[in-house]
Amino acid sequence: MNKRFKKLFVPAMAVAVLAASAAAIAQQAPKPENLIKWRQSAFQVIAWNSGRIKASVEGQYNKDEVVKAANTIAAVANSGLGGLFAPGTEQGKGWHDTTAKPELFKDGNKHFADLGASFAKEAAELAAIAPNGDVTAVKAQYAKLTRTCKACHDDFKAKD
Amino acid sequence: MNKRFKKLFVPAMAVAVLAASAAAIAQQAPKPENLIKWRQSAFQVIAWNSGRIKASVEGQYNKDEVVKAANTIAAVANSGLGGLFAPGTEQGKGWHDTTAKPELFKDGNKHFADLGASFAKEAAELAAIAPNGDVTAVKAQYAKLTRTCKACHDDFKAKD
Repeated sequence: MNKRFKKLFVPAMAVAVLAASAAAIAQQAPKPENLIKWRQSAFQVIAWNSGRIKASVEGQYNKDEVVKAANTIAAVANSGLGGLFAPGTEQGKGWHDTTAKPELFKDGNKHFADLGASFAKEAAELAAIAPNGDVTAVKAQYAKLTRTCKACHDDFKAKD
Repeated sequence: MNKRFKKLFVPAMAVAVLAASAAAIAQQAPKPENLIKWRQSAFQVIAWNSGRIKASVEGQYNKDEVVKAANTIAAVANSGLGGLFAPGTEQGKGWHDTTAKPELFKDGNKHFADLGASFAKEAAELAAIAPNGDVTAVKAQYAKLTRTCKACHDDFKAKD
């Protein structure tokens, strides 16, 4: 490599590497307001589908509705929701101001990791039993699932 | 049944039946603004997960991320999204004014049924192949999936 070429080439390469890294970082780090909007959306999707299961277990049982709703909750619960509570999202506005309490973010999101894992486990179990159509079993498992919602909301969700 | 008993019992039963039906109807029919909020939320959850797959196929491939994201999109796409476009939700506000064009609701939601079925099919296919980790196949299937998003948005979604 001659001197003149080196003078041009090395800085150009450095710029290219930095640009590529910046692009990679930009890709990996959505804006906090998007993360908050997405988590608020994810919990609304869970609420919609929880309501469908509730309507079935308390009223006219519709197996197809329960299977679809349970699958959706299980997928969202196991989607990696913890990533939507990344550092930098302790405060801020998605669709509305976050209702996550500051305590949720302490100790490297340990609380969300623990409570989220229980939620994901019970949701997966509900999705697994729903196709059998045993209403009593679905009702009992749905109750277990909603207890995991309540456990987290009681401690870590401010009233809307 | 004696006359006096009949006089009390029959109207009481009629009231009970009506009350039960009213409860069932109330359970089955969430408010239009909730349906709109839920569909806006569902599409945000899809956008979040689509972005995760895009970041993987265009940058550093992360199989675990792609599997979770593809599962979530498939579950939401197959959750019965058509129910969130029920009559009465042609106009109105969820998180914001609906961006669904009036044409989407014509002919008994035929358009949503057709386009939604393509979307659900391609999403299920992506979720099915994602665990194999074949990046080229995932990339091709992800492109097929996003074409189904675009096909519907082009004709039936107003600009935000």
